[in-house]
Amino acid sequence: MRNRPRPRRKEGYALIRMLCAGICNTDLELQWGYYNFSGTPGHEFVGDVIEAGRRELVGRRVVGDINLECGRCEWCKRGLARHCTTRTVLGIVKQPGCFSEFFTLPERNLHVVPDSIPNERAVFTEPVAAACEILDQVRIPKGAPVAVLGDGKLGLLVAQVLHAHGARVRLFGRHAEKLAVAKRAGITVSLGAAGLYDWVVEVTGSSDGLAQAVRMTRPRGTLVLKSTVHGTVALDTAPVVVNEITLVGSRCGRFEPALKLLRSGKVRVEEMISARMPLSEAARGFDLAARKGVIKVLLDNPRP
Amino acid sequence: MRNRPRPRRKEGYALIRMLCAGICNTDLELQWGYYNFSGTPGHEFVGDVIEAGRRELVGRRVVGDINLECGRCEWCKRGLARHCTTRTVLGIVKQPGCFSEFFTLPERNLHVVPDSIPNERAVFTEPVAAACEILDQVRIPKGAPVAVLGDGKLGLLVAQVLHAHGARVRLFGRHAEKLAVAKRAGITVSLGAAGLYDWVVEVTGSSDGLAQAVRMTRPRGTLVLKSTVHGTVALDTAPVVVNEITLVGSRCGRFEPALKLLRSGKVRVEEMISARMPLSEAARGFDLAARKGVIKVLLDNPRP
Repeated sequence: MRNRPRPRRKEGYALIRMLCAGICNTDLELQWGYYNFSGTPGHEFVGDVIEAGRRELVGRRVVGDINLECGRCEWCKRGLARHCTTRTVLGIVKQPGCFSEFFTLPERNLHVVPDSIPNERAVFTEPVAAACEILDQVRIPKGAPVAVLGDGKLGLLVAQVLHAHGARVRLFGRHAEKLAVAKRAGITVSLGAAGLYDWVVEVTGSSDGLAQAVRMTRPRGTLVLKSTVHGTVALDTAPVVVNEITLVGSRCGRFEPALKLLRSGKVRVEEMISARMPLSEAARGFDLAARKGVIKVLLDNPRP
Repeated sequence: MRNRPRPRRKEGYALIRMLCAGICNTDLELQWGYYNFSGTPGHEFVGDVIEAGRRELVGRRVVGDINLECGRCEWCKRGLARHCTTRTVLGIVKQPGCFSEFFTLPERNLHVVPDSIPNERAVFTEPVAAACEILDQVRIPKGAPVAVLGDGKLGLLVAQVLHAHGARVRLFGRHAEKLAVAKRAGITVSLGAAGLYDWVVEVTGSSDGLAQAVRMTRPRGTLVLKSTVHGTVALDTAPVVVNEITLVGSRCGRFEPALKLLRSGKVRVEEMISARMPLSEAARGFDLAARKGVIKVLLDNPRP
């Protein structure tokens, strides 16, 4: 993943030198063949702009939206480029990813990172944005009890983002050491899952998580689905209908609120870092990231 | 179901003499043992009030909400008695139903039927209210294309209610003779199911209906689930998450908008009546209602 030829920068694209990148569950699943993707994976990064058409970007430290839009379709025009039907996705769909010393991304996807946010925090912008997406989709009142199911990487971020929003979050998980991270951030945590909530977020990543989440949602309540599970899950739709539950699928989010939260320090991501290693040891990083108990593994590529 | 002793009227309850009742799929499923219900089924009715505490009700022709509330819990206080956690349900949960010459229901559940609505139309108030519930839950813009999947009894009513609301409804079904009923009501119909919609209502009652409905929902679209399917269905949640689809479970509704629509004649229900027979032939009515191609079967109990 190092010492490859620099990719050629297309018109409107920036050439970026990776500084730090995060391994996400999607990367592990790509590796296991789930997305029919070949090439360089990686979509969580902070990097330096080496070349760009917009001169003011050159030399700046940036993070970037991972969805590459056509810019012309209905979705792009509605400001929902994340749903562009012909989109490519950095390191996931037909676009070489960031686990490489150099890669390119459209300049319009880039967000300059404030100096006060160190690399190891900025690299969490993409998953924090995915957590923030929930608040763009549903209005959770401040003070409302919210159950977050799943203490994985995204679950820990969702819990923190909703906690920072002012919700009364309880994070349910299966790993004491992961729950401890949320607890130190001031979040109430529980091993296992129980109770009834008007607001439930399912981030377990497991095929039985949805059924559990439905059981924990009160009549007329809202269940936000953040887990992408591969294949079909068994769902008893009767309680969804009888209790008139609303299920909301939720994926990527805007970077602006994520950067704001990371700058404020209200979301503590550093404690989620289980290991850092050089990009050249990415293979080892992948092995480690797949291990039980490991949260986030970062790959570093310091400035020469 | 005739010549039984009249039930005793409890305080706050009215004694009702059934005039006309409709057989619903739920009644068939009760009979097949799905709801662990024993006793008299039936929840779609129009009847005469024979005795009541509120004297002004006596002698009036009424329809009635099927959910019997405790009146004290959070849900009842919020005006959502249909979700009262200790509710009983007429002919479905611990409350003898209306397939009987006499039955009782709380007076507060009753709605006086305007004289201009004949019995065979008034008896549809409950399922029309269930269709109207959709418009209490989600805001479908007038003129918006809506796909309704399922040409059964409830599907035909949902299509008509949304059509009357001003949506551009396309009803997808598998039965030419049922689709013809909707077509005569001015609704666009199709055999099979195809296309992409921002608004989809799943009323197929079949276990593969949800997957089909998800495939037909556009990114950020809304899928209303009206089918109660027994047991679990297989659902690929990935498109729900990736396309950020909202699924809304929807059950019973308020009677007021339903009576208004039935009075206006905007919802044509008479054509949905496949057969009418005396209450004494209810067993034959059940057999007929379960047959392919049959839409609504009514049981009559004319005034003596």
